[in-house]
Amino acid sequence: MAASDSVSSRSAAQLKTPKGTRDWVGRDLLLRDRIFQAASDVFKRHGGVPLDTPVFELRSVLSEKYGEDSRLIYNVEDQGGELCSLRYDLTVPFARWLAMHSNIKQIKRYQIAKVYRRDQPAIARGRLREFYQCDFDIAGNYDPMIPDAEIIRIIFEVFRALDLDVVVKINHRRILDGMFAVAGVPQERLRAISSAVDKLDKATWDDVKKEMVEEKGLSNDVADRVGAYVRRSGTMKETLEALRSNQDLVANEDIKAGIADMELLLRYVDAMGVADIISFDLSLARGLDYYTGLIYEVVLKSNGGKPSQVGSVAAGGRYDGLVGMYGKRPVPCVGLSFGVDRVFTILDAQQNKKASELESEVDVYIMAAGGKGFDGLLPERMAVATQLWDAGLRAEFFAKVKPKMIQQFNAAEKIPVAVILGEEELAAGQVRVKDARAGDGGEVEKNRGELVNRGELVERVRQMLSGVTIK
Amino acid sequence: MAASDSVSSRSAAQLKTPKGTRDWVGRDLLLRDRIFQAASDVFKRHGGVPLDTPVFELRSVLSEKYGEDSRLIYNVEDQGGELCSLRYDLTVPFARWLAMHSNIKQIKRYQIAKVYRRDQPAIARGRLREFYQCDFDIAGNYDPMIPDAEIIRIIFEVFRALDLDVVVKINHRRILDGMFAVAGVPQERLRAISSAVDKLDKATWDDVKKEMVEEKGLSNDVADRVGAYVRRSGTMKETLEALRSNQDLVANEDIKAGIADMELLLRYVDAMGVADIISFDLSLARGLDYYTGLIYEVVLKSNGGKPSQVGSVAAGGRYDGLVGMYGKRPVPCVGLSFGVDRVFTILDAQQNKKASELESEVDVYIMAAGGKGFDGLLPERMAVATQLWDAGLRAEFFAKVKPKMIQQFNAAEKIPVAVILGEEELAAGQVRVKDARAGDGGEVEKNRGELVNRGELVERVRQMLSGVTIK
Repeated sequence: MAASDSVSSRSAAQLKTPKGTRDWVGRDLLLRDRIFQAASDVFKRHGGVPLDTPVFELRSVLSEKYGEDSRLIYNVEDQGGELCSLRYDLTVPFARWLAMHSNIKQIKRYQIAKVYRRDQPAIARGRLREFYQCDFDIAGNYDPMIPDAEIIRIIFEVFRALDLDVVVKINHRRILDGMFAVAGVPQERLRAISSAVDKLDKATWDDVKKEMVEEKGLSNDVADRVGAYVRRSGTMKETLEALRSNQDLVANEDIKAGIADMELLLRYVDAMGVADIISFDLSLARGLDYYTGLIYEVVLKSNGGKPSQVGSVAAGGRYDGLVGMYGKRPVPCVGLSFGVDRVFTILDAQQNKKASELESEVDVYIMAAGGKGFDGLLPERMAVATQLWDAGLRAEFFAKVKPKMIQQFNAAEKIPVAVILGEEELAAGQVRVKDARAGDGGEVEKNRGELVNRGELVERVRQMLSGVTIK
Repeated sequence: MAASDSVSSRSAAQLKTPKGTRDWVGRDLLLRDRIFQAASDVFKRHGGVPLDTPVFELRSVLSEKYGEDSRLIYNVEDQGGELCSLRYDLTVPFARWLAMHSNIKQIKRYQIAKVYRRDQPAIARGRLREFYQCDFDIAGNYDPMIPDAEIIRIIFEVFRALDLDVVVKINHRRILDGMFAVAGVPQERLRAISSAVDKLDKATWDDVKKEMVEEKGLSNDVADRVGAYVRRSGTMKETLEALRSNQDLVANEDIKAGIADMELLLRYVDAMGVADIISFDLSLARGLDYYTGLIYEVVLKSNGGKPSQVGSVAAGGRYDGLVGMYGKRPVPCVGLSFGVDRVFTILDAQQNKKASELESEVDVYIMAAGGKGFDGLLPERMAVATQLWDAGLRAEFFAKVKPKMIQQFNAAEKIPVAVILGEEELAAGQVRVKDARAGDGGEVEKNRGELVNRGELVERVRQMLSGVTIK
């Protein structure tokens, strides 16, 4: 008994997707595609060129790019030949591609694809081991802050297309590092303190200070100075004013350069009409080491106008050193990555869930009615379906030679238009058409509907569809 | 010297994609997306539901499905946890998904995704280790041959949408096996002989016969009888007639059942208007073991009306046993897979190649002109770009504070409409708009173009674009 139990449970266990992965089907997938479409429409409008890279890269291409997160990389088995790993993000493959094509001086590229991380999955919170990223990056030498401003414009356009109100939190790595230096943080602890400060959006100041003092060995005074500097956010104008009014900060070369960048940025986002979606937040730090200038993180506005607690829905920044790591040439880059899964979760929650996620979106159902001796009219139903397909309409019929009326009615239940064939009507070159959503509570009844000549069928169906509420 | 050479060549060698994979970029990618769009439009029209499965599956899900091709499967490294492999096709993940969801009685599903095979790559012939498949399958119990006929209709609609003329070669596994049995092929050599016969589209009869006799141990007589049976193709009517007129063949139970299927199919494809794209070819065998009924293979019609030599552009068949292999329940299926790479190669060759595959598709280029002391009008260019983006137009400008005229002209070279800003015009609320393709050989010249009020800019640009030949 035990043995057979274990066999059957093992066989059942095999019928699943691997840990941290899922299937996507039907409406979920179509909603996800709608997000991709909205984003890629905006990317193309800004001159973006699509790129698609292999799902695995040479292992050497990925190595030394992700710090301690490298342990999360999926390796492909050594089966002879090259050592490969699944991509961890889309930024490194883009940098590899740029390094390979030294003829490309400037490019805006976008890529929407799955990435892989052997992390502890938390499916309810939308954290999976296989998930989509949706990236837009501008690479090459341009005058300062012009591409950076366009990225913010793109963020605005994508979320506008999705009907979501967002706040773009921004900061500048050189201002952040400058503040740490002025506060007295030792050079070698910059990134550690930076990552503690980055938690201020979720943790209290007391907790963050405790981490800096107790875990990261900062003195109480230095920690307090860091706190005084970074706990400030507002419009770009307000935060710039606050920085400029502090003589200690302004004297620092990094901060001076950062302020100059931010002043330019303000001018440009103003010209692009998106200054008012920005919050200049001096505590924003971002985890990744490779950022060198502007960094940003996009959060949803809650109804009260304050940032919501969903976490960031897009993020990115400037990384001028990454492409140069391949030893070919440096290429300055700025880019952003949309958190497709979080955006999906938000939009999905807004939708009224339909009965079945597997429902296909069909316009017309073709059925046959007849009395005794009736042969089912299958070739006739096929021919009418073909007429509708040729007109670009989405049509189905019951795939039985002699379906019962009730079977056809049930199958047609959520489909807006029904075409009903009968032998007599067909002999006269006619069919019955019925708006299944009109009048009598949306039920298709036997022998009802209006008589239409075959030649006018497509037009009549189109009229009915255009009068029908979108599902 | 030698040491440094080897270092630099090693570092250069790392800058590539793994063997048998490639990057896709720009126009190539947009063409590929057009193929996917054409196919998924047709799939949706027929009630298809999209499915997306993880790129890797539990290794046990893939095992014992591919016969000796299993050696081509990419395994993911054992890094603790479950053993996984990259998917080899989209059929087995679909069968796994069907077995997991026993509530699903009938479904039409499509999936467009990459699959992985550690084969010897032949990039010039379009054979890669990472490549796309585009599958449509109808699963569940229906009356015989109705789904099979709809698959052929779908093939017709997809290639019609791509403007390609095709021939659908069909055969039936039970007819094929029946012919082998009647000819005297021993039961245990059926599949081996089947795979020899399948080569008749590329090899001569003499070569195939040689393989059957010398390698596969058939007697001369049996081989000749096989040859006499299978070397026959024509319309469905012709081939059915030939089969029916042979008493030896008609007496075989498998052939009898196959003929009944084919008669039904003929009736249905006739009703769906696609009987005349079919060639009933008794030598078609298809490699995969799991087919149980109708099989088909789609080839391009050459200009002379005969099948071309490109090889098949789509293929598939009925596989009623595969889902049952997961031990849950049997689900009969019929499906097809489009050879996206071959279709891409054909369509790509038809296109006139543009100068650069990386060209983005931009509608409008915004430039600034001015004399001495001119400040470049960057925020003004940004504001005009924003106006155009808001109208859904694809607009770019030169990302420099003070670009030279020649730089802007060069960047705008292939873009249909130019908007030229000058300080005086802007002060009067106007800009210049120029159709860069009209009249004077398509060159944008300094200080030319028509004056337009800012409020009328979008409309005027739209007019110019609609008058411009599609690139």
